[in-house]
Amino acid sequence: MEKVKLGIIGLGVEGMAYAKFILDGRVPNMEIGAVSDVSADKESVAKEFGVPFFGDYKEMIKSGAVDAVVTTVPHFLHPEMGIFALENGVHALVEKPVGVYTKQAQRLLDVAKSKPELQFGVFFNQRTNDLYKDLRALISSGELGALRHTSWIITNWWRPQGYYDMSAWRATWGGEGGGVLVNQAPHQLDLWQWICGVPKSVFAKVQFGFRRDIAVEDEVNALVDFGNGATGSFITATHDMIGTDRLEILLDKGKIVVENSKDVTISRLNKPEQELSKNMSLEDVRKLFSGQLDMSEFMTTETKSYISVWGDQHSEVMRNFAAAIHGEEELLAPGADGIHGVRLANAIHLSGWTGQEVSIENFDDATYLNELNKRIREEGKFEERD
Amino acid sequence: MEKVKLGIIGLGVEGMAYAKFILDGRVPNMEIGAVSDVSADKESVAKEFGVPFFGDYKEMIKSGAVDAVVTTVPHFLHPEMGIFALENGVHALVEKPVGVYTKQAQRLLDVAKSKPELQFGVFFNQRTNDLYKDLRALISSGELGALRHTSWIITNWWRPQGYYDMSAWRATWGGEGGGVLVNQAPHQLDLWQWICGVPKSVFAKVQFGFRRDIAVEDEVNALVDFGNGATGSFITATHDMIGTDRLEILLDKGKIVVENSKDVTISRLNKPEQELSKNMSLEDVRKLFSGQLDMSEFMTTETKSYISVWGDQHSEVMRNFAAAIHGEEELLAPGADGIHGVRLANAIHLSGWTGQEVSIENFDDATYLNELNKRIREEGKFEERD
Repeated sequence: MEKVKLGIIGLGVEGMAYAKFILDGRVPNMEIGAVSDVSADKESVAKEFGVPFFGDYKEMIKSGAVDAVVTTVPHFLHPEMGIFALENGVHALVEKPVGVYTKQAQRLLDVAKSKPELQFGVFFNQRTNDLYKDLRALISSGELGALRHTSWIITNWWRPQGYYDMSAWRATWGGEGGGVLVNQAPHQLDLWQWICGVPKSVFAKVQFGFRRDIAVEDEVNALVDFGNGATGSFITATHDMIGTDRLEILLDKGKIVVENSKDVTISRLNKPEQELSKNMSLEDVRKLFSGQLDMSEFMTTETKSYISVWGDQHSEVMRNFAAAIHGEEELLAPGADGIHGVRLANAIHLSGWTGQEVSIENFDDATYLNELNKRIREEGKFEERD
Repeated sequence: MEKVKLGIIGLGVEGMAYAKFILDGRVPNMEIGAVSDVSADKESVAKEFGVPFFGDYKEMIKSGAVDAVVTTVPHFLHPEMGIFALENGVHALVEKPVGVYTKQAQRLLDVAKSKPELQFGVFFNQRTNDLYKDLRALISSGELGALRHTSWIITNWWRPQGYYDMSAWRATWGGEGGGVLVNQAPHQLDLWQWICGVPKSVFAKVQFGFRRDIAVEDEVNALVDFGNGATGSFITATHDMIGTDRLEILLDKGKIVVENSKDVTISRLNKPEQELSKNMSLEDVRKLFSGQLDMSEFMTTETKSYISVWGDQHSEVMRNFAAAIHGEEELLAPGADGIHGVRLANAIHLSGWTGQEVSIENFDDATYLNELNKRIREEGKFEERD
């Protein structure tokens, strides 16, 4: 089967890394068809790769040189580029997030829905991590019962001030549309919902420019409600040099704890917890209070470690995308899934701004966009959005 | 010096345990002066101890047989008993919580304030844990700088249904006044504030009778605001058989992680984090993005384990209380400190009931008591409170 010819839009750090993975043969069913960048001096890179260069990504899409594109550009541009590709018969692999705000992301999803013959994926490379795939399968199977609680402390997204100072659009409302929620944490916002389900509402404390000299948020503490009494906590920051990555999921029949996206402990109760609670003898209750009850009798515990090689996740997303184009596989991260993380991120912002709990189920796109535009206007560096 | 003669009010599981610690000589500066219980058949226990028995605690206090009392009785009774003791010249060691609601606790604090010659303590035995004493001293010293974030998942308070079914007053609004917040978690609500400071507001999701057949809460997910951008998460439950106890505290110059109230990891940054952030070279920033930067270069990490023997904590609270009466030591847990935990617990309830963020700084005692009485009335088992 012919290799999928990928057009890379944007030759920054990310676009260059993806190009290298393909050139190194780490994505066997894909080749670079062309590259595009707004900066003309990237033409030499195209020459080096031996592929055509386009200053305008639209020309690249219309040229016939590519079957698909990936959008490694500032976040606000993902939807319009995805739409242009799909409307011109080109498959779209959109970088996360699929949009900065839901109204924009929805436009892309609507176009994608009208083009079922084309693949529309989102670059959630962490979904390729076997650990998370296994957890999703375990929870979906129902073996551990219904969700009670989950918390994710994911503060190992440390970014120094120099990172923020690199580009004028970085960490601005108008150029990037947010901070840790839009740039770093979308991976976990996606995984969390992929594994535990989509929350119905959120209350959050959001710190804007807390320990960095930026307009947008560098710390988030969010409390979500999944319905049926199940709740969750999501804590992220870019100023924690000692970074924590700890996910805990409590269910009716067991608990999962993941450390560093690598080491997982799964405790399985011998029976549903409520049954064990109801049937415990008074003698055992007395033992409990004098510290004599061995709780491990009621459960089995499994520990596993997963190994991750840098670059494998990104190569795997591209391989899976090409395989989907070939009709061989389902997309691991369909683009439509991407809107859940955008909506949760938007709702967290909105809760932080208003001090109120915000509905995710009936999310108010218009109010969010108004609030975002207010900040873009005050900032005075970029155009408002619609 | 003469031993302090303690009067034990309530010979339930707790009162009996404390008596045994004293009789076993684990509290060298204290002896049992008398005991009191509403149940006359406990007189035989007093005989066994060789001390006077009183059916009415007030008579015991007025008898001259005791220098001090401890109140091991249902929570609602702590304040009135503490007040009666102090007003009759007897030192009071009140069980936690110092009251079920702040208005009640405040009455006790006011009386205690008017009796500076008497000792008024609260039975926060976990304050005697060297681990928490050391953490409080470390954070108070300022070595690690200002607080940024803290979270405590403390769900190892597992209680089976049979525990709740033991007494008619247990886990009711009128008889106990709450669930995990009033009975089990007060220890951590106290320690958290003792170490990290008193929060200014809270938003919480509180599950009442979530996985237990009870009127009150068996799960809490609370998000607090300490002011100056510092926030915290507090998660507790009585239905988690696999129980977690994990405290994390992030500060400007380091991080503390405590597992199981026993193992602590302290990471100290070589310089304040913002300074490291500002001065990082572009070369190091580049290394960071390719996973080549060794973050351990910027910090030192210390791990320590603390050993705790069952009963030592309780004996130590009594020893310290007697030493304070002798004028030899300061109280480790002054009674006045107890109101912070009561207020936080009340504010969490109120936020759960109203769905709103609740001020702790300007806590509305009256509204809380109204809401509590509404639930006592609906329950129809006990009298309303004032």
